[in-house]
Amino acid sequence: MEIDLNADLGEGFGPYRMGEDEAMLDIVSSANVACGYHAGDPVIMDRTVRMALARNIDVGAHVGFPDLMGFGRRQIQADPLELANYVVYQMGALAGIAKAAGHRVTHMSFHGALGNMAAASYELAEPLVRAVAEFDRDLIISVSTNTEIERAADHIGIRTANTFLADRAYDDQGALVSRKLEGAVIKDRAAVLARVKELLEEGTITTIAGNKLKVAVQSILLHGDTPGAVELARTVRGVIEAAGGRVVPVSKLVR
Amino acid sequence: MEIDLNADLGEGFGPYRMGEDEAMLDIVSSANVACGYHAGDPVIMDRTVRMALARNIDVGAHVGFPDLMGFGRRQIQADPLELANYVVYQMGALAGIAKAAGHRVTHMSFHGALGNMAAASYELAEPLVRAVAEFDRDLIISVSTNTEIERAADHIGIRTANTFLADRAYDDQGALVSRKLEGAVIKDRAAVLARVKELLEEGTITTIAGNKLKVAVQSILLHGDTPGAVELARTVRGVIEAAGGRVVPVSKLVR
Amino acid sequence: MEIDLNADLGEGFGPYRMGEDEAMLDIVSSANVACGYHAGDPVIMDRTVRMALARNIDVGAHVGFPDLMGFGRRQIQADPLELANYVVYQMGALAGIAKAAGHRVTHMSFHGALGNMAAASYELAEPLVRAVAEFDRDLIISVSTNTEIERAADHIGIRTANTFLADRAYDDQGALVSRKLEGAVIKDRAAVLARVKELLEEGTITTIAGNKLKVAVQSILLHGDTPGAVELARTVRGVIEAAGGRVVPVSKLVR
Amino acid sequence: MEIDLNADLGEGFGPYRMGEDEAMLDIVSSANVACGYHAGDPVIMDRTVRMALARNIDVGAHVGFPDLMGFGRRQIQADPLELANYVVYQMGALAGIAKAAGHRVTHMSFHGALGNMAAASYELAEPLVRAVAEFDRDLIISVSTNTEIERAADHIGIRTANTFLADRAYDDQGALVSRKLEGAVIKDRAAVLARVKELLEEGTITTIAGNKLKVAVQSILLHGDTPGAVELARTVRGVIEAAGGRVVPVSKLVR
Repeated sequence: MEIDLNADLGEGFGPYRMGEDEAMLDIVSSANVACGYHAGDPVIMDRTVRMALARNIDVGAHVGFPDLMGFGRRQIQADPLELANYVVYQMGALAGIAKAAGHRVTHMSFHGALGNMAAASYELAEPLVRAVAEFDRDLIISVSTNTEIERAADHIGIRTANTFLADRAYDDQGALVSRKLEGAVIKDRAAVLARVKELLEEGTITTIAGNKLKVAVQSILLHGDTPGAVELARTVRGVIEAAGGRVVPVSKLVR
Repeated sequence: MEIDLNADLGEGFGPYRMGEDEAMLDIVSSANVACGYHAGDPVIMDRTVRMALARNIDVGAHVGFPDLMGFGRRQIQADPLELANYVVYQMGALAGIAKAAGHRVTHMSFHGALGNMAAASYELAEPLVRAVAEFDRDLIISVSTNTEIERAADHIGIRTANTFLADRAYDDQGALVSRKLEGAVIKDRAAVLARVKELLEEGTITTIAGNKLKVAVQSILLHGDTPGAVELARTVRGVIEAAGGRVVPVSKLVR
Repeated sequence: MEIDLNADLGEGFGPYRMGEDEAMLDIVSSANVACGYHAGDPVIMDRTVRMALARNIDVGAHVGFPDLMGFGRRQIQADPLELANYVVYQMGALAGIAKAAGHRVTHMSFHGALGNMAAASYELAEPLVRAVAEFDRDLIISVSTNTEIERAADHIGIRTANTFLADRAYDDQGALVSRKLEGAVIKDRAAVLARVKELLEEGTITTIAGNKLKVAVQSILLHGDTPGAVELARTVRGVIEAAGGRVVPVSKLVR
Repeated sequence: MEIDLNADLGEGFGPYRMGEDEAMLDIVSSANVACGYHAGDPVIMDRTVRMALARNIDVGAHVGFPDLMGFGRRQIQADPLELANYVVYQMGALAGIAKAAGHRVTHMSFHGALGNMAAASYELAEPLVRAVAEFDRDLIISVSTNTEIERAADHIGIRTANTFLADRAYDDQGALVSRKLEGAVIKDRAAVLARVKELLEEGTITTIAGNKLKVAVQSILLHGDTPGAVELARTVRGVIEAAGGRVVPVSKLVR
């Protein structure tokens, strides 16, 4: 049993810090690095990439809206082709930083409101995913199952890694339950750990309706920006390893 | 006789335009493209790169300070290693845009105050040039002769293209005369054309002191952002071709 | 017959210019000045305010989304109370610039996507208009008739100036026809002038359905950023004065 | 014995926080609020102003360079008149936020590199201070003694509050010792408290040369952004009150 653990890191800006990047880098196998639009700056990107390299951890581009003040969490109704340019700009910037540091970018994911919008709209997902493929057809796109991003990637023929959010509820179709609905976010630590165990041992998610859904997951997303998050992440890793699993960078898992 | 003609293009931002990019792209053999810090945005970068590709023109990264409001023309006293990160970020972003468009970046140059500061300080030039080499050792750096940027590039072992500014005075050491001094900027069109002819036919610059200085120049920088600039650029190209010269992208000239 | 002529000015940023501000300032009686979020910067704001003062022209705050790259024309789904803070920030900044220059701000209007969203949603318009009143109850809000902004202003008890867009079609309820619909933008100069004359002489707008609608208008919005716009604006002013009308700043008209 | 305690607050941006604003607001009598250029945004400004109002605390504008990425700590060589426009823009924005919240701005200070540059150059300090006076002649400028800012304020005739930095060394002329020199920053808590006591009881500072210098100080600057800073601030307040002193907002002290 092999699985990737990833986290969204490098989300500071200038003098500001967010989350505990160093502690998380000691736990995960892949880092999704903010690229300067919703968070992150070249200095933080460089530092994060070098810390990842020192730990043999994969680096991915975490791209978002140009909205630092809103942390990329506000929907912006922009032209999809212009957004595709924004996505390539951010991926290129991180790829440059990684190259200069002797590392390389293996994957990418869409942050916040951009991710939510693309997950829900094929008209948006298609040009964004196409831009990723035009930039680098070897990149892996981290996706949630049953999203328009996944469909666009399948259609365009670029690899994806299904990413499981252990603290979020799923419906019977394998889609994330909207944060606006009750029960969407699972705050109980024991419940989160039980979900990870179920995934590892049975390959299933228990949906919000109480059904067991078979899923193929390559990666688990961990958070590092809330109190206790690092400790929970460490426990998740412990659970995996105690069950005989191996934590492996996403690029080693997705063929 | 072969020479490169280049210009600083893609210097708009969002709804704003600067200079006549399309007209200039029909004249030059290399475009130095702003990368979003002092000017430029992903949409304009993409458009500029595609127009260059359609004309078989070289694309270079024109990198500057993060100061859109000051157009990168104001000195910022920042840490050289942080500035090196900014430089790599910008080059990577353009390289990404170019790759997605099916083109590639062949050269780079430092814009405005960043260029002036690096030209005058080896302590600044060295880490910036080193970052360029770490990002891509095959890039050519456009330099003015007798600058610390040139010295750093020679030391680090990355290729340079000596760029001649036809409308600027040079001293007997081949260095640009500061804009603050009288006679530094040559506004008379006939004088500018005469300087281009002298360079092509004799391989010399007449310095501000009136002496003839032998120079090895691979490229002539043209401007496109002042009234009459496009017409002057066209005339310069005409002068070169009338003299039997060939206008060739910088990457074909520098070995 | 007295009417205000206004235009959106000061829409440059740093080295960039947009429209012909000086020419327009010789024609209008009120200037709506961008405040640094969708366009404008402190230097341009100061210059615009001083030019307006020299001509005894009213100055208004033209506030928008924090989206320079999109010129404030892209919808951003932000919290209304946070947007209210953004609006106050921008009005305060312009009021500060005006005060230091010996002038004062008499009115305000919402730019681009922020204006469109507030016009269509009372839930958004209400907190924004309330913030305007809390900032300065004496300000006049430039509105289009039959919008939620107008309704919120009436409810909150702050004065409005109905602004007529001579080059835009209206429906029988007096609302602007969406730009997405055919015929929404009137490009024929003679038709635009005929609409101004009809408004002045009969106090009516001919709607897109062909009906005559009685309207009470205090202000006409002119554009200065398209070819021929300045000439058209000058002609509109000529039409008003030829008809015996007087062009008067908005603060003199709205009681 | 009455003295003002002030701190630089509201230095977050969007999702980012810096320092412990609420804890500090319970200790100080004046808050210097960042205005969106080097730090701060309209939402944070509004929140900080309302918290200050609830505690009857003075609010001041803390203005800096437009350099969020560098936190306003990097020198930018900009035109002094353009910088004056930036200063007015920021003061106006905060005044607007304060007015809408039912509060008012009583003082201002220059942040980081802008403050350092103006303190050292009359050519810069003069237009900046003049702009403050043109914006609001009743504002108090927080200054360090023996700076060009103080001299410009005296010349222009605007009130100042001498601000003592308890953790910084002074020379025999009453000027701050440059951070680059050894001993410039006093890290020992007991030493800091002893300096506050000396100031309160004897009205003197012991200079870096070991001499006692008579100073007239209206305000003490406290920090809230380093570990232990809040506790130290609370202790300083305790020392003042134990000595029979009263902590009073700056606007009550400066006549």
